[in-house]
Amino acid sequence: MSALPQVHVALLHHPILNRVGEIVTTGVTNLDIHDLARSSRTYGCAGYWIVTPIAEQRAMVSRITAHWRDGDGPGLHPQRAEALSLARVAATLDDVVTAVTDEAGARPRLVGTTARLERATVGYDDLAAELATPGAAPALLLFGTGWGMTAATLAACDMILPPIAASAGRTGYNHLSVRAAAAIVLDRLLGQRR
Amino acid sequence: MSALPQVHVALLHHPILNRVGEIVTTGVTNLDIHDLARSSRTYGCAGYWIVTPIAEQRAMVSRITAHWRDGDGPGLHPQRAEALSLARVAATLDDVVTAVTDEAGARPRLVGTTARLERATVGYDDLAAELATPGAAPALLLFGTGWGMTAATLAACDMILPPIAASAGRTGYNHLSVRAAAAIVLDRLLGQRR
Repeated sequence: MSALPQVHVALLHHPILNRVGEIVTTGVTNLDIHDLARSSRTYGCAGYWIVTPIAEQRAMVSRITAHWRDGDGPGLHPQRAEALSLARVAATLDDVVTAVTDEAGARPRLVGTTARLERATVGYDDLAAELATPGAAPALLLFGTGWGMTAATLAACDMILPPIAASAGRTGYNHLSVRAAAAIVLDRLLGQRR
Repeated sequence: MSALPQVHVALLHHPILNRVGEIVTTGVTNLDIHDLARSSRTYGCAGYWIVTPIAEQRAMVSRITAHWRDGDGPGLHPQRAEALSLARVAATLDDVVTAVTDEAGARPRLVGTTARLERATVGYDDLAAELATPGAAPALLLFGTGWGMTAATLAACDMILPPIAASAGRTGYNHLSVRAAAAIVLDRLLGQRR
């Protein structure tokens, strides 16, 4: 086992809340594939999972990552290809947990993110310190698309981080893109500011 | 004058380096308009400037922001409308500096961002402390698209932040999206982690 824990990122497209609180499946976007792969690669994550029950969308993601692995991508944009090599697809969160458990040799702790302060159970600094501890268990960071993860998904998490907006400034505005939110969470947990 | 300095964000589309070091004009993308507006709003920035010499692209940005201000946008997505209200266009960086100077009552300090460590002149924590000082001058944070700002633009900056990758982890990978990089820089400078 390596000194530092494996950290995986998962972007969930189902079950997801929509604007009025209904449970929906959101569409996979090309930009989310690229942006979160690049952020995950920058912070040394072991894997980036795009989770959708829609088989056609998983096939689309696989075609895109194959282009960057085998097509013209690597020659023109080697750094892009390197990031995309982290991207993998799964039909459900359970499938991701199973795959990461197989790969890491231990069940990952599920770390949820939410825009609701009252659900938070762990602070950024505390989790960052834990992730920097040799021998710590692997972690799987969950990000929701749309209007966020369901209460049931959050209830299945081992810990939940506070919303970024609660510590973002003095604005009370709480509507970051998932691309921005994931980058900030990775920097707070895995960045080395000094 | 308010207790805290006005912080503005500018996304530059010219002059910009391309993959082989030539000076080009990059295209404005809809997603950059939205994502950086939402991040700027979250961190309490006073303005978000989209800078391009191409008049048609400035007109496109103005149409998009007008939709969110006056069209169907505000009713369906009030938070999106609120963020987009920060977005403004300018033909050149000089025009932004002039406008911010007029608005803030003092010339903003130009804060550059770069992927090259050797150019850095100020650390995140030092600048964050300065921005938190009552009576500090306004600041204009510059982000490049494409392969980044030119040496001449960086030379005109009052200070330059280190690349995020230098403190991102243990990876040496240095190819974040500008959407992710801007979010992380805002969080490091204006976020309140504790």
